[in-house]
Amino acid sequence: MAKSVKFAVILSGCGVYDGSEIHEATLTLYSIAKNGGTYEIFAPDMQQFHVINHITGEEMGEKRNVLVESARIARGKINPLNEFDINDFEALIFPGGFGAAKNLSTYGIDGVNFTINIEVRSAVTNMVAAGKPIGALCITPVVIAKLLSDVELTIGLDQSTITDIENMGAKHIKAGPTEIVIDWNKKVIATPCYMLESPIDQIAQGINNVVKAIIDMV
Amino acid sequence: MAKSVKFAVILSGCGVYDGSEIHEATLTLYSIAKNGGTYEIFAPDMQQFHVINHITGEEMGEKRNVLVESARIARGKINPLNEFDINDFEALIFPGGFGAAKNLSTYGIDGVNFTINIEVRSAVTNMVAAGKPIGALCITPVVIAKLLSDVELTIGLDQSTITDIENMGAKHIKAGPTEIVIDWNKKVIATPCYMLESPIDQIAQGINNVVKAIIDMV
Repeated sequence: MAKSVKFAVILSGCGVYDGSEIHEATLTLYSIAKNGGTYEIFAPDMQQFHVINHITGEEMGEKRNVLVESARIARGKINPLNEFDINDFEALIFPGGFGAAKNLSTYGIDGVNFTINIEVRSAVTNMVAAGKPIGALCITPVVIAKLLSDVELTIGLDQSTITDIENMGAKHIKAGPTEIVIDWNKKVIATPCYMLESPIDQIAQGINNVVKAIIDMV
Repeated sequence: MAKSVKFAVILSGCGVYDGSEIHEATLTLYSIAKNGGTYEIFAPDMQQFHVINHITGEEMGEKRNVLVESARIARGKINPLNEFDINDFEALIFPGGFGAAKNLSTYGIDGVNFTINIEVRSAVTNMVAAGKPIGALCITPVVIAKLLSDVELTIGLDQSTITDIENMGAKHIKAGPTEIVIDWNKKVIATPCYMLESPIDQIAQGINNVVKAIIDMV
């Protein structure tokens, strides 16, 4: 029986176009439980950059809070990210979705010169300093690349994002839907998820491969 | 190689307390894909009964639309339920969440004398008349019990809901988290999901058992 690994999962809202990608977030929790791990869920207590109608793709005239909307995925069991303490966890994982590029960071708005939420920055840099692994799904490796620079990771095949990642000083490895890229030095494990147009069962496989690699590493 | 079965999935919003339970909805799509099936997603184009803050459990002073919020789970690929045509599908499945008792029906507000959205009613009764199977997760068997009356199903162990179901003339069979109850005559397959306090990997197993039973039946 493998050791039970305790994960922190950081969400960025609830819905692919303005928050966390829901399938990726759910399948992350599922993979952790299936592989004998446990988790707590966190999100920053801040206003979303905007609210998108997921049918039309248009902005809605509403304001929503990242923590409150993320709680939908967490079934209410969620903590504000400023309460995250790396001593309580052996691993950290970021599901994807545009929320990572609009709420956790400004990559989706500002491009390569983006900024990153200070709580996200602390979480990532403290985990790396403590030698604890980080899983980065979908678009979230962009945030890791910006923070760590000297790191090897993947967002799949999208050339414009790859160029941005390389311009931040990171090394990008192209990967297919169920493949993972591991940086053994920084302990970052990435998979493309919905950065590729993959069916949900392949998304699940990619995430499961990340979770298993993290557990093996711990 | 088993036949590829085409499912219609009916959602009721996005979030356990005022819409579809997100894990159940996502894991339903995952199970269908994993077992070689395909799906289209539907939801009624109507205002949600209310909007609940999923941290505090309190009502928020907002209005949201069931179809638009369900589109978050569907990644935008969703159809209004009034466009559902049973001829296009071999099976129908309802993920749970309070949306089934607040939007698809009024069970959560009116108790045993509740009413059911007319599009949901047509979908269920037409599927049964055509001899096509229906999966009912979590609280949604209450809606099926009300419509079909003479049917055998489960919502788990909750005695007050069981009494209501029996008062509608249906037969309730108690079931654990990964167990399913099949009505072979009406072709209804139910599992308790989050009507029990189960971990997400058991929720996934229960749903997978429903999806596999439906595929075997088709």
